[in-house]
Amino acid sequence: MKFVCSKSDLLNGVNIVSKAVPNKSTMSVLECILINTTGDVISLTGNDTELGIETIIDGQIIERGIVALEAKGFSDFIRKLPDSDITIEVDHNYKTYITCGKIETTLIGKSGDEYTYLPDIEKNNSIILSQMSFRDIVKQTIFSVADNTDSSSGQQTTKGELFEVFGDSMRLSSLDGHRISIRRLQLRDVYDAEKVIVPGKSLNEISKIVTGGAEDDIEISFSSNHIMFEFGKTKVVSRLIEGEFFDIDKMSSSNYDTKVTVNKKDLMNCIDRATLFIKEGDKKPIIMNIQDSTLIVSINSIIGSMNEELDIENSGKELVIAFNPKFLLDALRVIDDEYVDLYMINAKAPCFIKNETESYIYVVLPVNFNAV
Amino acid sequence: MKFVCSKSDLLNGVNIVSKAVPNKSTMSVLECILINTTGDVISLTGNDTELGIETIIDGQIIERGIVALEAKGFSDFIRKLPDSDITIEVDHNYKTYITCGKIETTLIGKSGDEYTYLPDIEKNNSIILSQMSFRDIVKQTIFSVADNTDSSSGQQTTKGELFEVFGDSMRLSSLDGHRISIRRLQLRDVYDAEKVIVPGKSLNEISKIVTGGAEDDIEISFSSNHIMFEFGKTKVVSRLIEGEFFDIDKMSSSNYDTKVTVNKKDLMNCIDRATLFIKEGDKKPIIMNIQDSTLIVSINSIIGSMNEELDIENSGKELVIAFNPKFLLDALRVIDDEYVDLYMINAKAPCFIKNETESYIYVVLPVNFNAV
Repeated sequence: MKFVCSKSDLLNGVNIVSKAVPNKSTMSVLECILINTTGDVISLTGNDTELGIETIIDGQIIERGIVALEAKGFSDFIRKLPDSDITIEVDHNYKTYITCGKIETTLIGKSGDEYTYLPDIEKNNSIILSQMSFRDIVKQTIFSVADNTDSSSGQQTTKGELFEVFGDSMRLSSLDGHRISIRRLQLRDVYDAEKVIVPGKSLNEISKIVTGGAEDDIEISFSSNHIMFEFGKTKVVSRLIEGEFFDIDKMSSSNYDTKVTVNKKDLMNCIDRATLFIKEGDKKPIIMNIQDSTLIVSINSIIGSMNEELDIENSGKELVIAFNPKFLLDALRVIDDEYVDLYMINAKAPCFIKNETESYIYVVLPVNFNAV
Repeated sequence: MKFVCSKSDLLNGVNIVSKAVPNKSTMSVLECILINTTGDVISLTGNDTELGIETIIDGQIIERGIVALEAKGFSDFIRKLPDSDITIEVDHNYKTYITCGKIETTLIGKSGDEYTYLPDIEKNNSIILSQMSFRDIVKQTIFSVADNTDSSSGQQTTKGELFEVFGDSMRLSSLDGHRISIRRLQLRDVYDAEKVIVPGKSLNEISKIVTGGAEDDIEISFSSNHIMFEFGKTKVVSRLIEGEFFDIDKMSSSNYDTKVTVNKKDLMNCIDRATLFIKEGDKKPIIMNIQDSTLIVSINSIIGSMNEELDIENSGKELVIAFNPKFLLDALRVIDDEYVDLYMINAKAPCFIKNETESYIYVVLPVNFNAV
């Protein structure tokens, strides 16, 4: 195999597919990036068998072939080369010669025979949206995917996000036993209904390489076991999680007794300050004393105490309710509105943070508190 | 005690003195920042008994007093306050009320009775230089101060830098058993001779808070056990290390058989790439094959191999010599010249990297290598 390409194209491709290369794998060939020039293009692939990424780079193929190169060493080395053309040549023992100006390097490559290629996905059911919208909606929901330390981690389905298409809209939902995040997005066309669970880890990695803007599209296709994302010259395939997701719609409710409208930034900064009074591992809640036109946020710990007053509009009853501040902060951080509405019933029922169109719904469970 | 000051002044002061506050101390009061308004100014102090920092902030004293506040919690909290005036009031139990707009906080303070104050240093012997020169000369020599993992760490003196004043110049020197770094700086006036050893840790922390430019001065004073640095509204006192420093001048030599002139950036980038072929813990050297007008840098490891040719001027014999690449890189990084001169005698004698005026001298010991 032999081909020539620019350093920047190669590095860009290597950075993209590296997102799917595991640090450690029982199959050492999966710790490699596969370079394939047997077709008419130079393709790079990374695959941890749950998530696979393939991208195509510009360049000139001189001799066709396949080689697998240890991902970390290869990408570190390419990064440090000068901005110039790079020639990569592989001999029959997979010894790989990388030449760039007066720099000559040899890397020990591997055969690609045992490499796990990406599955083929038929594009019968595809939706199209902008890369920016996709990246946003993932960022706005991914934080409440259950991780291994969550109490609900026994359920595999909570380690993924529910990915639904209904006609001209799509919805992403995630939950971890303490809170639920739901985002709905208007689509440009009408599509068949879809309902799949995508691993949170996959969505997280994909959102890092989907770097296009509002004018750049991403096409998402569904098969029974996989979901495929195509954008630019890159194709990403992730396995789906099997099972039934928690019934999100059961949670929805328009009942409330207390509705607070508050400046989002003020509330965020206030809660952020309050978290300083919580030592690691301590589960001290913040207490929100909701009055007629004032919200008093307070915390009281062994370190000290804080009381802060915020101006609010309350179109309901007064209420004292306590929360884990992190869960409120996570939701507030991904809301772009200047003012947010909080809907509550009592100190034991979930609090809903949502807008009128319900394009976002964040549900946070309150915590018990002792009288302060 | 009660005083009012701006958030930015307070935060700036807290950031400065925090550099001397230990994370853990057997005396818990030393984990605090001492706030003292008993004089005519608001002073903040941090002190780990080896290094002490005192700074003065603007503000209005309403009631005189002293309090010690746990440094980390206090500084985290101040950082998150809005940009506004802050009132700090301390009651007779050292309970500290911090008010900023509608935010009211209580922190549990401590008495300053057991606090270790900074020693008084007489300013009989002082030198003055610009803050920028001071920061530069420290950065250019600090990396070869021996740390605890170095073989020579049995010697306390190598954990500091030799700080010398000779008339109208000063010199900083450090060494760790593998290399020596020496920088000489021209002073504006003529001063008495001084020769002290300053802990590397102290110099490192001080260089972080000496943020002034070429027009801002720093005054350095010497006593038998301490060195004091004064700049802006800040005073830093460090203990000295006792003992005899290695005789630096014994090393100096103008003999050489090979003198290489090479573009510094090219050489740095080349060595940097070569280090990628060294796995952690591996002591693989880089081999420099110095020919008449070419330097071939090569490395050969289990990962692969690299050969790179650089254009040089060699006004001496040809030579093959091997180095730990990190030691060369550390020296090259802090040299500002476009071209550097390397002086060598043979493959076993130290290599000198120095300029004609010897304002810098970096000595690096070569390592053994097997024929490649």
